[in-house]
Amino acid sequence: MIKIAILGGSGYTALELIKILLRHPAADIVAVTSRNEETPLLAELHPSLTNRIDLRTEPFQADRLLAAGVQCAFGCLPHGISMGTLPALLERGVRVIDLSADYRLRDPNVYAQWYGEGHHDLAHLAQAVYGLPELYGEEIATAQLIANPGCYPQPAILGLAPLVAGKYIDRDNIIVDSKSGVSGAGRTPKLTTHFPECNESVAAYSVGQHRHTPEIEQALADLAGEPVEIIFTPHLIPMDRGIFTTLYASPTRPVSESQLLELFRTYYAQAPFVRVVNHLPATKDCTGSNFLDITVRVVRGRIVVLACIDNLIRGASGVAVQNFNRMYGFDEKTALW
Amino acid sequence: MIKIAILGGSGYTALELIKILLRHPAADIVAVTSRNEETPLLAELHPSLTNRIDLRTEPFQADRLLAAGVQCAFGCLPHGISMGTLPALLERGVRVIDLSADYRLRDPNVYAQWYGEGHHDLAHLAQAVYGLPELYGEEIATAQLIANPGCYPQPAILGLAPLVAGKYIDRDNIIVDSKSGVSGAGRTPKLTTHFPECNESVAAYSVGQHRHTPEIEQALADLAGEPVEIIFTPHLIPMDRGIFTTLYASPTRPVSESQLLELFRTYYAQAPFVRVVNHLPATKDCTGSNFLDITVRVVRGRIVVLACIDNLIRGASGVAVQNFNRMYGFDEKTALW
Amino acid sequence: MIKIAILGGSGYTALELIKILLRHPAADIVAVTSRNEETPLLAELHPSLTNRIDLRTEPFQADRLLAAGVQCAFGCLPHGISMGTLPALLERGVRVIDLSADYRLRDPNVYAQWYGEGHHDLAHLAQAVYGLPELYGEEIATAQLIANPGCYPQPAILGLAPLVAGKYIDRDNIIVDSKSGVSGAGRTPKLTTHFPECNESVAAYSVGQHRHTPEIEQALADLAGEPVEIIFTPHLIPMDRGIFTTLYASPTRPVSESQLLELFRTYYAQAPFVRVVNHLPATKDCTGSNFLDITVRVVRGRIVVLACIDNLIRGASGVAVQNFNRMYGFDEKTALW
Amino acid sequence: MIKIAILGGSGYTALELIKILLRHPAADIVAVTSRNEETPLLAELHPSLTNRIDLRTEPFQADRLLAAGVQCAFGCLPHGISMGTLPALLERGVRVIDLSADYRLRDPNVYAQWYGEGHHDLAHLAQAVYGLPELYGEEIATAQLIANPGCYPQPAILGLAPLVAGKYIDRDNIIVDSKSGVSGAGRTPKLTTHFPECNESVAAYSVGQHRHTPEIEQALADLAGEPVEIIFTPHLIPMDRGIFTTLYASPTRPVSESQLLELFRTYYAQAPFVRVVNHLPATKDCTGSNFLDITVRVVRGRIVVLACIDNLIRGASGVAVQNFNRMYGFDEKTALW
Repeated sequence: MIKIAILGGSGYTALELIKILLRHPAADIVAVTSRNEETPLLAELHPSLTNRIDLRTEPFQADRLLAAGVQCAFGCLPHGISMGTLPALLERGVRVIDLSADYRLRDPNVYAQWYGEGHHDLAHLAQAVYGLPELYGEEIATAQLIANPGCYPQPAILGLAPLVAGKYIDRDNIIVDSKSGVSGAGRTPKLTTHFPECNESVAAYSVGQHRHTPEIEQALADLAGEPVEIIFTPHLIPMDRGIFTTLYASPTRPVSESQLLELFRTYYAQAPFVRVVNHLPATKDCTGSNFLDITVRVVRGRIVVLACIDNLIRGASGVAVQNFNRMYGFDEKTALW
Repeated sequence: MIKIAILGGSGYTALELIKILLRHPAADIVAVTSRNEETPLLAELHPSLTNRIDLRTEPFQADRLLAAGVQCAFGCLPHGISMGTLPALLERGVRVIDLSADYRLRDPNVYAQWYGEGHHDLAHLAQAVYGLPELYGEEIATAQLIANPGCYPQPAILGLAPLVAGKYIDRDNIIVDSKSGVSGAGRTPKLTTHFPECNESVAAYSVGQHRHTPEIEQALADLAGEPVEIIFTPHLIPMDRGIFTTLYASPTRPVSESQLLELFRTYYAQAPFVRVVNHLPATKDCTGSNFLDITVRVVRGRIVVLACIDNLIRGASGVAVQNFNRMYGFDEKTALW
Repeated sequence: MIKIAILGGSGYTALELIKILLRHPAADIVAVTSRNEETPLLAELHPSLTNRIDLRTEPFQADRLLAAGVQCAFGCLPHGISMGTLPALLERGVRVIDLSADYRLRDPNVYAQWYGEGHHDLAHLAQAVYGLPELYGEEIATAQLIANPGCYPQPAILGLAPLVAGKYIDRDNIIVDSKSGVSGAGRTPKLTTHFPECNESVAAYSVGQHRHTPEIEQALADLAGEPVEIIFTPHLIPMDRGIFTTLYASPTRPVSESQLLELFRTYYAQAPFVRVVNHLPATKDCTGSNFLDITVRVVRGRIVVLACIDNLIRGASGVAVQNFNRMYGFDEKTALW
Repeated sequence: MIKIAILGGSGYTALELIKILLRHPAADIVAVTSRNEETPLLAELHPSLTNRIDLRTEPFQADRLLAAGVQCAFGCLPHGISMGTLPALLERGVRVIDLSADYRLRDPNVYAQWYGEGHHDLAHLAQAVYGLPELYGEEIATAQLIANPGCYPQPAILGLAPLVAGKYIDRDNIIVDSKSGVSGAGRTPKLTTHFPECNESVAAYSVGQHRHTPEIEQALADLAGEPVEIIFTPHLIPMDRGIFTTLYASPTRPVSESQLLELFRTYYAQAPFVRVVNHLPATKDCTGSNFLDITVRVVRGRIVVLACIDNLIRGASGVAVQNFNRMYGFDEKTALW
């Protein structure tokens, strides 16, 4: 059994993580931290956990977690807070899967540009492995610190990876149009996520300014061996969960739909959670699962890729456990199938 | 043209009121107040009003409103605040339709018991007329101060009125089970109305403690000539608008479904906004309108009444304009048909 | 491994059943039948099963199922069809968990009255055990034929059971007001479940005529030792899943809220899937699980019970697997926790 | 008063049309046709019309409509049926606003290619005016036959018009990514619009094959004076109403966001229903209105236009009445403001 701490237990990704880990035969959640000074029972924060886990949240104290034997911590803290909290554990040998954005961007200048503050844990940033198992699976196995990927980046990166890696598309004419359920905005009430405001409505937000943009570009540049620039537009959709991403790209050479489907099938032949399908996928078919469903079409000479995921599972907590499985040598599918 | 002020312009009832009054041939909105110190344009608070009204909100100042010629004010303020604000206008002759709860309960002790603070405008409380046009239509016509009814009370009171007035049912075995859309909870973000919390979920709230209980009982007692006690359970439904109320009562004497439908039809023969229907109504059929749809069934000797409204229109701003029409001698349906 | 057939694979309960059984360490789905003559792959009927199960549906043929070694069949057929299909398996020793209504009502006259046709498998009807594990757990363990309970009956029966069994309430003044998500209406498209018709709307249906009424009354009569009559009103709610049931009853003697909560806790002390909670439950807290969350309040001398479930899991396929676990001696929680 | 017939009264566009026309001071609905042989009351087809209009639907008979004095007919018939029905009225002088697709594409070969059948009313096709008032307003005023525009084409065409007309963008690198509520799919129940299938899900459909593609291209070609080709991807969103369209285009020369906003404001200065806004629009702000809200951004050198409408009003029945107002010389905003 691996003794696990979850840091920041009050949000949706922590809740999903707990539910998945409760089904994991080798995971033992020994501590859940929260800044909530009343140290409520988890079932008080998340009534769906009633009778399922008997822990109280506790304030974060590295000493206490070490004393409890914590071997692996999942960070569900806000960006900025994360890089102030995790070093205390990393320095004492705890392995960490960080669901925040703090260790995703290798270049601290890019971080500063998009997140509006300088990075102040450059040492660990240099060691962090980007936790997208289909692309960085080997490094993940031995990493101490995983920067778990963002929700939007996953269908964008994996939807473009075979095309970018194989130089099938122009690197400067890529459109990423994404549609996300509201849970992606977190659990803190705001006017934009107040039910009567966002229900029965669609709107774009952060047009041209969303922080997942450089994360997508970094992974695509790794694949291309040269910079890639995207236009990324996220939209808020009146549903709890799910991201649907529509990708538009210009082919560098003529290619047919069946060739592309074959390309994708081959590229993901070893990836159990990527399902290359012939039909047009729907987010609902991924809801509650760690699958990423994907297909590709050729429309008037342009390539259109359609990909979807459950933003809380594949987009956050599921892929975190997939990374955990790789780090500890379990079957990648454990607790996720 | 009647010069109108709307007090408290940032919420949903104010928005609906403005939309309705913009269609009213004799209504001239000259001022909208708000505690928002930045005095935004109405279109900034409510983007749907873009290009439709060019006012800025302003802080409440009775002098300014009087100087602007305001004859009638609609109060969209929170309870407690309302009774501290309206007297300054009432004392100077302005007619007021108050959408808060402050002047609905005639007995200030009942107010104190349910609202947790004493009433401090007893003088105007004594003059206020309860603004349910189907029952208090004559007093409304000449009133200076209308206590506009709550959303839940309307289908409950009007669904029971013919039965209570005609002594068809026991006064001590009445169940009011109501289902409301989320806009009824107002526009201030809270965890319970955060989209991912209340979407795809149903829950009861304030069981046995909802403040609309004494309001329903007061009107039913007026009809019965003696006290009436109800069991009221409100539920939150994942939709923007609409209240569906299911009423259960025990008949005092055998009565058939067709007799009851006839009773309701006769009782509401002069009420253009009450539609007694044979089919089972749905909230959607009332959405966007000032109608209250209602039918009645006999199930195993028990009477079941089913009634629904749009909670923001019939439940608040629509009935407020219906009251306005009666106060100023316009056709009751003006701007509402 | 128990070899399993699922009869009628195209609907929602079959889909949920398959997902649960795929996680069950001792369940081996060997056949799924359907009247669909094209014998599609399951993943074509249910895209969410892509890469998870490789079966094609096949027409129902008892011989083929026996030849495949089927030991246990789950019936997901419409009522009426079920009793015409299952005898061929029952007579040859297959154990059956029938999710239709055909074997739930012991009295064939009651069946005929509510379902509009006579029962034509009286022999097996006489042997069937009503599959509500919290009440009929012992008979379930040894039964050949389980009549899996309906969705509405479960929160109604289990919400009233401690009160009826202990004679705490009048048997002739019970109101069952239920609110259900749309998946309860099945997968066949109809106008009433067409998205733009039922979204953003609440309506009651089948008032006084819903077929789950006698099923609830039968179980309550078992507990009371004498007939019980209820008033049952189902409502359609714009959400995928979940049933919230509000129960109103008149106590036979004074009883406090804390006494009632204690009564419920004691009554369900051995029932892992019934969670007696202090807070007001919400359907969302049960979504995706086999839990039934329940609490009780005293309002003005009346007892109000609030109970909720996931209608497809606890209300159908989850409880079916709970029954399967009891029938084959597995831990009741296997694949459901 | 203009005597009006509505052809095909059972769907959503007919319902919206009736609601709008009931508020129109010069519109007199004298007949509503339907293929429903039972000739139900309109309130039976559409319960929300109860007590509002007392007509029965009747089978289509040109003679009867002429005898009733019908001057103007709104066609709410399916494509294909429309061109078989309208000639009988057109030939006898009735003016027609056709909400079907039958008269939108000037080139019958293009019609045949996208609709899969030849056009068989070439005479009237040649006279039809495309009913997009902001672009074809003068021809509309005198037309006998209006081809009312499709829902998706309006935000696409009007969102691109200033750019295409002014040669600001490349004509061969335009992406139209649209998100529509479910009412756009009509009122006939299908599996894809069955509530539990499409609720809580997003999916693309008809990728590269949607019939509104040539309609968009035809209007853009009119503006450009040369062919324009687009990539159009529609998506189904779990909400009743609204279309949000995100347009991506490559500028032919450097241009700033403020220049573009100014361009749009100037272009639509005379168009009361087009609101060029600075903020990112949301479909909800247009719901229930005939407005098209639009803004424009420059993202990494690419132009991104964001536009939204209510698909049933601006997208169909509202713009039909806007056309009606122009045809009969009423203020364009009559019944729509």
